[in-house]
Amino acid sequence: MSEFISKIRTIQWIDNCSRMVDQTVVPYEFKYVDITTGQQMFDAIRTMIVRGAPAIGIAGAHGVVLYAMELAKENLSRDEFVKKLLEKADYMATSRPTAVNLMWAVEKQKDIIKNSKSDIAGIIEELKQNGIKLENEDIEINKKIGDYGAEVVPKGASILTHCNAGALATVGYGTALGVVRSAFAKDKTIQVFADETRPRQQGARITTLELTMDGIPTTLITDGMCSYFMKKGMIDMVVVGADRIAANGDTANKIGTYTVAIAAKYHNIPFYIAAPLSTIDISIKTGDEIVIEERSREEVTHINGKIICAPEVNVINPGFDVTPHELITGIITEKGILRPDYNNSIREAFNK
Amino acid sequence: MSEFISKIRTIQWIDNCSRMVDQTVVPYEFKYVDITTGQQMFDAIRTMIVRGAPAIGIAGAHGVVLYAMELAKENLSRDEFVKKLLEKADYMATSRPTAVNLMWAVEKQKDIIKNSKSDIAGIIEELKQNGIKLENEDIEINKKIGDYGAEVVPKGASILTHCNAGALATVGYGTALGVVRSAFAKDKTIQVFADETRPRQQGARITTLELTMDGIPTTLITDGMCSYFMKKGMIDMVVVGADRIAANGDTANKIGTYTVAIAAKYHNIPFYIAAPLSTIDISIKTGDEIVIEERSREEVTHINGKIICAPEVNVINPGFDVTPHELITGIITEKGILRPDYNNSIREAFNK
Repeated sequence: MSEFISKIRTIQWIDNCSRMVDQTVVPYEFKYVDITTGQQMFDAIRTMIVRGAPAIGIAGAHGVVLYAMELAKENLSRDEFVKKLLEKADYMATSRPTAVNLMWAVEKQKDIIKNSKSDIAGIIEELKQNGIKLENEDIEINKKIGDYGAEVVPKGASILTHCNAGALATVGYGTALGVVRSAFAKDKTIQVFADETRPRQQGARITTLELTMDGIPTTLITDGMCSYFMKKGMIDMVVVGADRIAANGDTANKIGTYTVAIAAKYHNIPFYIAAPLSTIDISIKTGDEIVIEERSREEVTHINGKIICAPEVNVINPGFDVTPHELITGIITEKGILRPDYNNSIREAFNK
Repeated sequence: MSEFISKIRTIQWIDNCSRMVDQTVVPYEFKYVDITTGQQMFDAIRTMIVRGAPAIGIAGAHGVVLYAMELAKENLSRDEFVKKLLEKADYMATSRPTAVNLMWAVEKQKDIIKNSKSDIAGIIEELKQNGIKLENEDIEINKKIGDYGAEVVPKGASILTHCNAGALATVGYGTALGVVRSAFAKDKTIQVFADETRPRQQGARITTLELTMDGIPTTLITDGMCSYFMKKGMIDMVVVGADRIAANGDTANKIGTYTVAIAAKYHNIPFYIAAPLSTIDISIKTGDEIVIEERSREEVTHINGKIICAPEVNVINPGFDVTPHELITGIITEKGILRPDYNNSIREAFNK
């Protein structure tokens, strides 16, 4: 297990609330907000106060606890409580459509609600404990991903990443940046190239912040520059996260990932996905079935509240794209690195 | 010849100054500035008040006139005047290193300075008239490029472009967007997808402005999105400008162009360069010889004066990249569309 200690704890259940880093104000501020109601959590996910597929999963699990605590004040019968809470849980799962971890974590909480033998107070306690368990598991899983991934990082490598699949996308270690952290623990000569990741600039705002906080050398580039540095031989590998992976390995991740994958293929540079098995949705055969969230035009037309284009221009703003499995060198999971044919390797990983 | 009339005049010699659209404040303001000294012109090119390879060429030619007018006030002998003016012209040519049109236009003025039989006042008048002639030629050349290019635009096409190779990159019609204008004059169902073009956002700031001013339907996307729309079948062709083209067709253009070209190749979408012959530098054999301007870190780290990343992050900011000839379907020039083998077709175009 890696010895690397990150300074960052993105989300944590504390007493009776969910405390999280407010990622809408990073890097200008690094502050925590306490989420105390279910609707607040729904909005926090929707507005990306918390973001990153694994972190959203934990947030969803916490959100179900918060709804349970609210419903407990309504003097409902146990049956009514369970029925209403399951509805609230389903609502929570709709706060963002693409990341499967959210649905996965909410389902884990729904299993407890459906199967618990306890009274209302007991159900709430079980949901809280399960939320905390999922937090701890997320860190453990990330470290396993990091350690498996570090094995394929060449000595002194420059690693390109897109968006933020780091500590701030998870509970506190990262998937793609977990690989970076574990590699850096062994080899202080590695470095990261971080794509800015327009429109929301998670690479610039979040990845550069968390890597410099942890002392890992990082170069910020704009999204269009990746091929320039690949051609110059300055990128040795690409590692990105995932929001949903189909049974054949097709991977939805932040918009722009697919372009990076094509560029990596053109330059014969290995392109890895790093994600927990909870990101794999074996119920869908290919990436064609993944719902792509369309987000607001203002994310493209405005930066820091100021318009950057002709006001009347048309905009289309898909939040994600799908990288087809044939562009993916391997999927780094807590059960090891899955290789093509992904239909087989994914099935085997789930049966391990 | 196309009937399309653009509303935009980017640069024009008026009385005793060079009047230009200030492109550092577009799209927030659309204002003209009068450049009245040679050093002002050098700074205007350097700070990108005027930008776009063909427009920079005209600006450089005007700048030589402005230096000549200043030197005329110094009571120099004709020989001293010529010597000093040639030095100033060489200095003007260094204001930006990548666009060859700047060197080309300055050389045209230097030819006049060296070969004129006139007195100082006569030389100045010849330089002025040559500047005006270059302006008019630029528009005529653009319209020829537009008309040749329009022949390869499919009916109802969606045309992706990167950066701004439009009216605002030239005197008033455009190269890549000249193709768009000429195609739109014949077919009102075409539309444009404009890459934002980080870091300086010329696509968002300038291309969306000039196309909406001219009533051409335009969709703004971020640089990483191009592959997403290509895969969806929503892009029929790519047309971009050029800053310098080598004898083998390798083309330097705004950073990010190479990434778009790779994505176009992957999706079997035609990728065209639109540029006047003055952009072709037959003195260099391949793109490896093209000097790539490195620009300031602030262009990447700040937008509208506000930092977008961790302040201590490293940055590399190449202003251009080189798209290798094998990714280029054709080079649209005023002498027709050049096709591979470019070594042959470029040589033939210069001999036409």
